[in-house]
Amino acid sequence: MNQKVLFDLSYGLYIVTSKEKEKFSGCVVNTVCQATAEEKPKLTVIINKENYTNQIAKKSKKLNISVLSKEADMLLIGKFGFRSGKDFNKLEGTEYIEGKNGVPVITQAVCSYLECDVIDVIDCGSHSIFVLEMQDAEILSEKEPMTYQYYHNVIKGKTPPKASSYMGK
Amino acid sequence: MNQKVLFDLSYGLYIVTSKEKEKFSGCVVNTVCQATAEEKPKLTVIINKENYTNQIAKKSKKLNISVLSKEADMLLIGKFGFRSGKDFNKLEGTEYIEGKNGVPVITQAVCSYLECDVIDVIDCGSHSIFVLEMQDAEILSEKEPMTYQYYHNVIKGKTPPKASSYMGK
Repeated sequence: MNQKVLFDLSYGLYIVTSKEKEKFSGCVVNTVCQATAEEKPKLTVIINKENYTNQIAKKSKKLNISVLSKEADMLLIGKFGFRSGKDFNKLEGTEYIEGKNGVPVITQAVCSYLECDVIDVIDCGSHSIFVLEMQDAEILSEKEPMTYQYYHNVIKGKTPPKASSYMGK
Repeated sequence: MNQKVLFDLSYGLYIVTSKEKEKFSGCVVNTVCQATAEEKPKLTVIINKENYTNQIAKKSKKLNISVLSKEADMLLIGKFGFRSGKDFNKLEGTEYIEGKNGVPVITQAVCSYLECDVIDVIDCGSHSIFVLEMQDAEILSEKEPMTYQYYHNVIKGKTPPKASSYMGK
């Protein structure tokens, strides 16, 4: 079994955000996937249970997704991807708007965003599979979306230990 | 709500195959995602319920994934993506090997492949979310993986109506 096969899978890069009462959290994921093609499409996103965003989204049942563009730098990705939102305010110094559902949407280095309801959460061991229903979505710019390959090969970004695709040091 | 936001999501392109007794089926999907980073990682793949491969994989609990390279042409993608395996033998004239789990693995224009057990199936309306556990995986070539964006923009490929990402004619 060659685990390096997993490097051949292709993804985008996203910041997912959620808010429950006054508690906000957001994190970087590569695991967003459209599941159905209805008027209000369903999507899936997979988030580590240890991520604060996982806990907040389970309670609030709201999750917004910002599609990162190739302009996203390591300062932004580092803030949302490598630090916990439990201890500091990730929104400080970050461009964002308030979504129609009341959850902040990151707009910095972002192509477009989706506002979603969480309609199901499936336990998958270390991670949860969130099933989402898209309620609103807007395009913000014509920038090219960041791909996971571009993040690794061009930006030379690392994968944090809590990521689905973490492959060790 | 701007549904075109969904075009900003990034994916690879894959042929998934399954076999139950003498019944084989395979289809093209863009919906493969690594979920966990264990020794035997879990993955998800989303398949339309009307796809024959969906029905076969639910019974056999085996599903193999071939990662298409940029060399995959419309002849191959058309055969597996736009025609049903109920009525003709998709393996005829296609390069493949038999996986360790007995399910054929497509090797034509493929970077690598994964052999998986189906450990859970979640109903998602028109589609099913298959939760997989990787049992084996091998790299076949150093070719570049096909991305969904490359398929649309360079090969000028279409999206079939049963796909998760179908957006109408």
